[in-house]
Amino acid sequence: MKKLINDPADVVREELLGIAAAHPDLVSVHFDPNYVVRADAPVKGKVALVSGGGSGHEPMHGGFVGVGMLDAACPGEVFTSPTPDQMQAASKAVDGGVGVVHIVKNYTGDIMNFDMAAELCRAEGAEVEAVIVDDDVAVQDSLYTAGRRGVGTTVLMEKIAGAAAQEGRSLKEVADVCREVNAGGRSMGMALTSCTVPAAGKPTFELGEDEMEIGIGIHGEPGRERMKLKPVHDIVEMMATAVVEDFPLKKGDRVLAFVNGMGGTPMIELYVVFNELQRFLSGRGIEITRNLIGSYITSLDMAGCSITLLKLNDDFVRLWDAPVKTAGLRWGV
Amino acid sequence: MKKLINDPADVVREELLGIAAAHPDLVSVHFDPNYVVRADAPVKGKVALVSGGGSGHEPMHGGFVGVGMLDAACPGEVFTSPTPDQMQAASKAVDGGVGVVHIVKNYTGDIMNFDMAAELCRAEGAEVEAVIVDDDVAVQDSLYTAGRRGVGTTVLMEKIAGAAAQEGRSLKEVADVCREVNAGGRSMGMALTSCTVPAAGKPTFELGEDEMEIGIGIHGEPGRERMKLKPVHDIVEMMATAVVEDFPLKKGDRVLAFVNGMGGTPMIELYVVFNELQRFLSGRGIEITRNLIGSYITSLDMAGCSITLLKLNDDFVRLWDAPVKTAGLRWGV
Repeated sequence: MKKLINDPADVVREELLGIAAAHPDLVSVHFDPNYVVRADAPVKGKVALVSGGGSGHEPMHGGFVGVGMLDAACPGEVFTSPTPDQMQAASKAVDGGVGVVHIVKNYTGDIMNFDMAAELCRAEGAEVEAVIVDDDVAVQDSLYTAGRRGVGTTVLMEKIAGAAAQEGRSLKEVADVCREVNAGGRSMGMALTSCTVPAAGKPTFELGEDEMEIGIGIHGEPGRERMKLKPVHDIVEMMATAVVEDFPLKKGDRVLAFVNGMGGTPMIELYVVFNELQRFLSGRGIEITRNLIGSYITSLDMAGCSITLLKLNDDFVRLWDAPVKTAGLRWGV
Repeated sequence: MKKLINDPADVVREELLGIAAAHPDLVSVHFDPNYVVRADAPVKGKVALVSGGGSGHEPMHGGFVGVGMLDAACPGEVFTSPTPDQMQAASKAVDGGVGVVHIVKNYTGDIMNFDMAAELCRAEGAEVEAVIVDDDVAVQDSLYTAGRRGVGTTVLMEKIAGAAAQEGRSLKEVADVCREVNAGGRSMGMALTSCTVPAAGKPTFELGEDEMEIGIGIHGEPGRERMKLKPVHDIVEMMATAVVEDFPLKKGDRVLAFVNGMGGTPMIELYVVFNELQRFLSGRGIEITRNLIGSYITSLDMAGCSITLLKLNDDFVRLWDAPVKTAGLRWGV
């Protein structure tokens, strides 16, 4: 295993220390239980957004805490759900008195623990709404998941709902925006290589030198098909076809196209992927109105990419364009 | 070779098509000769900043074209200098009538071609000043370089000098800021894995499963020493010691600390590196006043990192904080 780490058991704590040292203007990091909150939390009168999940997907979620996006993130150990006490403590720390939305990716552990955390919060008088992200069209049920997995749409939801909360919408309205984003988002990923979990010390799965896996999950869960490596044109066509036909999107639809690197993929390749995606969509009369290209929801050091399409309406476009100030996404401020 | 590409010969062109499709609000991309310019170029009365170099280091340089940073970038083929005609055409396209600064990383091909381009521009009546970046403390002379290589400080120079140009400083003043940044910046890199040049199809060098290379260049050029993999604490100590003692920095100095991923390194590891660097510098009484953490000057898919320290003064801090709007760096707008 080749990683820039010390003891594998300390990776998450040392990462959080790094985030705390790097971004004191944006966030405060709390330990035992671990969570990251907006530096100015709680914001009175604003609906608070809390997300979380296993570590190893950076910058998600800790890198999305800040003005106009998340109020708090709860990092679990690598690829392991955070615990209810983290979620409860984080929710309490950011509750501005008008409710908290939990953004939960559809993995069995996350669902169970966020459920429990919501109950704990409610028992203390807080208003909590939970919303589920399950946008991965690759497979129905998977390792760690019943139903579809939650992947790239999470990033878009955190940005768009974060803007909705920032402009003062109510708990129900913010949760509804989340549900609408989930309904309008579809993703699919692929891997050129496995990832290696630090504590495991060896690759999660094996891929031959000329193989790739289409439909991979963000923890290296099996996808749709393992096949011979193909030109990126064919890869994008396979993935984009699956995504577009799942909606289905039609001529004239506007989308936000998100090309995401899995952690071990350089930008040069992501722009080549985006070029293919743009050609594919334009051939079907689908317009890319907004885009996001980079490594925002990763799987440790996995090489590969995912494609997320979010069907846009005017509200989504406006909320996407609204100012955001986080370590991972920043514009307008 | 596992990459998200089509024909290796088309990677740069297809990447540029991707950039053009993604960022029409920020840049215009020209082909034959290839260059990327600010969407609103030329900006009358503003000193223009032009850089360039081989492709494969994305987001540098094309991702740094925009308001408050570069006016133009000239991408060569992968790890190959751009040609004088690219540089000349780009300089002409962005010349706002008060001169052009060429930011040149210290590699033999780049130096020679930018030299020739400057002569061509001057022959047409343009004012051109060239500044060299040679901040890599790892080795004196190297493959492709006489003297020190130009690495991470380039990114900081492009941001800081870009802000100086944006606020209306003269050609000489902007070039002086570049020279001051180069004088105040030092870097060192390391690799966990090789990179693979698409046209070569195989790794540039071989590293054993338990080996790393300290002092690596951004094209996989040999560094100081190949050694057994160590904990990140030791890696950062080796690199930061070399950088700090080269200045030398002393107690009370303020720095911008830039932890850079080489292309195949995930954010989780870069934050662990930053944590170590922060502890190291704090132990010597050196204050990190600003920081930048992410993959900004890469070596294709190489796993590894580099550390750049820029000794700060008040002018640098103010210019660093000034608004910037590019695909790769954005804040304040």
